[in-house]
Amino acid sequence: MEDKTIFWDFEKNCIKLVEQTLLPTEYRIISCESVERLAKAIKNLEVRGAPALGVAGGFGVALSAFRHDDENMDGFLRLVSDDADYLISTRPTAVNLSWGVKRVLSTIKDAKNPKEARDIALLEAVAIAEEDEKMCRLIGKHGADYLPEKCTVLTHCNAGALACYTWGTALGVIRSAVAAGKEISVISCETRPLNQGSRLTAWELSRDNIPVKTITDSTAAYLMKKGEIDAVIVGADRITHDAVFNKIGTYMHAVCAAHHNIPFYVAAPSSTFDNINSESDIIIEERSRDELAFCGNKQLMPDSVNALNYAFDPTPMELVTAIFTEKGVLKPPLLKGELVPESRDI
Amino acid sequence: MEDKTIFWDFEKNCIKLVEQTLLPTEYRIISCESVERLAKAIKNLEVRGAPALGVAGGFGVALSAFRHDDENMDGFLRLVSDDADYLISTRPTAVNLSWGVKRVLSTIKDAKNPKEARDIALLEAVAIAEEDEKMCRLIGKHGADYLPEKCTVLTHCNAGALACYTWGTALGVIRSAVAAGKEISVISCETRPLNQGSRLTAWELSRDNIPVKTITDSTAAYLMKKGEIDAVIVGADRITHDAVFNKIGTYMHAVCAAHHNIPFYVAAPSSTFDNINSESDIIIEERSRDELAFCGNKQLMPDSVNALNYAFDPTPMELVTAIFTEKGVLKPPLLKGELVPESRDI
Repeated sequence: MEDKTIFWDFEKNCIKLVEQTLLPTEYRIISCESVERLAKAIKNLEVRGAPALGVAGGFGVALSAFRHDDENMDGFLRLVSDDADYLISTRPTAVNLSWGVKRVLSTIKDAKNPKEARDIALLEAVAIAEEDEKMCRLIGKHGADYLPEKCTVLTHCNAGALACYTWGTALGVIRSAVAAGKEISVISCETRPLNQGSRLTAWELSRDNIPVKTITDSTAAYLMKKGEIDAVIVGADRITHDAVFNKIGTYMHAVCAAHHNIPFYVAAPSSTFDNINSESDIIIEERSRDELAFCGNKQLMPDSVNALNYAFDPTPMELVTAIFTEKGVLKPPLLKGELVPESRDI
Repeated sequence: MEDKTIFWDFEKNCIKLVEQTLLPTEYRIISCESVERLAKAIKNLEVRGAPALGVAGGFGVALSAFRHDDENMDGFLRLVSDDADYLISTRPTAVNLSWGVKRVLSTIKDAKNPKEARDIALLEAVAIAEEDEKMCRLIGKHGADYLPEKCTVLTHCNAGALACYTWGTALGVIRSAVAAGKEISVISCETRPLNQGSRLTAWELSRDNIPVKTITDSTAAYLMKKGEIDAVIVGADRITHDAVFNKIGTYMHAVCAAHHNIPFYVAAPSSTFDNINSESDIIIEERSRDELAFCGNKQLMPDSVNALNYAFDPTPMELVTAIFTEKGVLKPPLLKGELVPESRDI
């Protein structure tokens, strides 16, 4: 997928992005011509995925700079800074969003006038996007070496181009392997309750003509038993020295992969590494029961019943075969505080 | 649940049943006053589950006998026999349906007149229902001994009262344990793609005030890791000497239970045992991609992508701790041809 998930329109000076809530039934690129429209897109998950939100935050500050034109630089900077705060508040726990916003905002502090601020902001926002792509391609290159010439790879959730500027992390490894001439088929777990696997991963791979089939999450073990899965590749939300935190269900796949002697790989930028905490320090987000109780217009649970809806689970490092990062490949066991020593500036 | 899933209305001489496609949002008992209405209920899965279909088949033949009144016994028997064939054709692969129909039909061959045929048919159909309840309660009694005084049990799909005349197999074990004074909480896996776990199991347990929570199927392993599951109990569609065939996802739970040293129990009548075949002889039913592609009015997959939708999976006997039957408890390994020697007449 050479398309970008979110990018700058240099003619109209606005942000364009793939409206992901319409997928998989409709592929539509929408324009965000105001910070308000971008904020709505972030809130409504029209754009999602940690790296993509970093890019969105950066472009968002550039967009703000293009929309304001106060002669007084202090006034101008105040307006842009207010927009920046507003953008961050749309998803307060999204670390990358806030990081992208702040990174671009910090570059325009000393601009002489709004025109210069716009140029600087846009340059920095584009740099964030391009760094993201470069990082994904490096992760992909490192990981692709680990896949056999012809194989079937199982993945969970969407660690793909749609979660990044382009290319993807786990799906980036698959794309890089295909680009290197390998024959890769993908089994995409639907990933309940929000179905990112069937809605997004299946969509973006089929768009790239990479063979993909969807299964219920609970079918994975049976396919492993039948010898139809050669490797598992997933992304990560956080990596501590002792565990990989990723979408709920990742741990189940890791246990089943180990049972069937199938390699279990994680693809993630080094910015995902948490050098401070251990598995037991991390509190797993619990989300609304409604995600399980309803699907479209269909009610799936009686009103009287509660759900346990954990968003993530931790996979202990002993179940992980290797972690692909843009800096190289790590093989567990990892020692506390020594995850990716050279990554602290990321 | 003292309620019956399907039963005879002795005042109106018709069949009544819980309309299961309305669950979990509505609990409605409908009347089947004609064989056509019963056939529709079976086709549309308003009544489902192997034992419940056996009962439905039996009552269906009785209903037919009550609806026909030919003076000529040959003509009468021909009409009832045609209805019997029609009922069997509604779900041709449902062995229990055909078994229930044939068992009742065979009892009326020598009846002197339609009145006598009706009495005999109804008596036999009621016997099928009562035997089913007795069998479930025996399975429950045998299994309940294996559950600790206070525990949380994970189950998958619906091996409950709604799949039987009443009480249930896997859920029957839970009901029997509760009836014996044990404090049981249940984790019900939603069971994609048709959500029998969240729609039916959660509904019938909460109706009985047995504490139940729903999870996505892929959350099970994480709860095991957290030490929150004390046992897994599932039903079975077929048991060979070397494997238990049950709803897709059962195998995944068995692998994860073994990884966490959690006992994995199967509850099933001895009629489920297949003394002839081995695991490798059984062809797993593949169902329509639409079950994964759509949920209510929501499309979950792009049109260009296919699904692998296996209905069942085999769990090798070495992952099974014990099998609860109405005749007692079996502990693997089992030898071919010696599963339940005394069950051949069932």
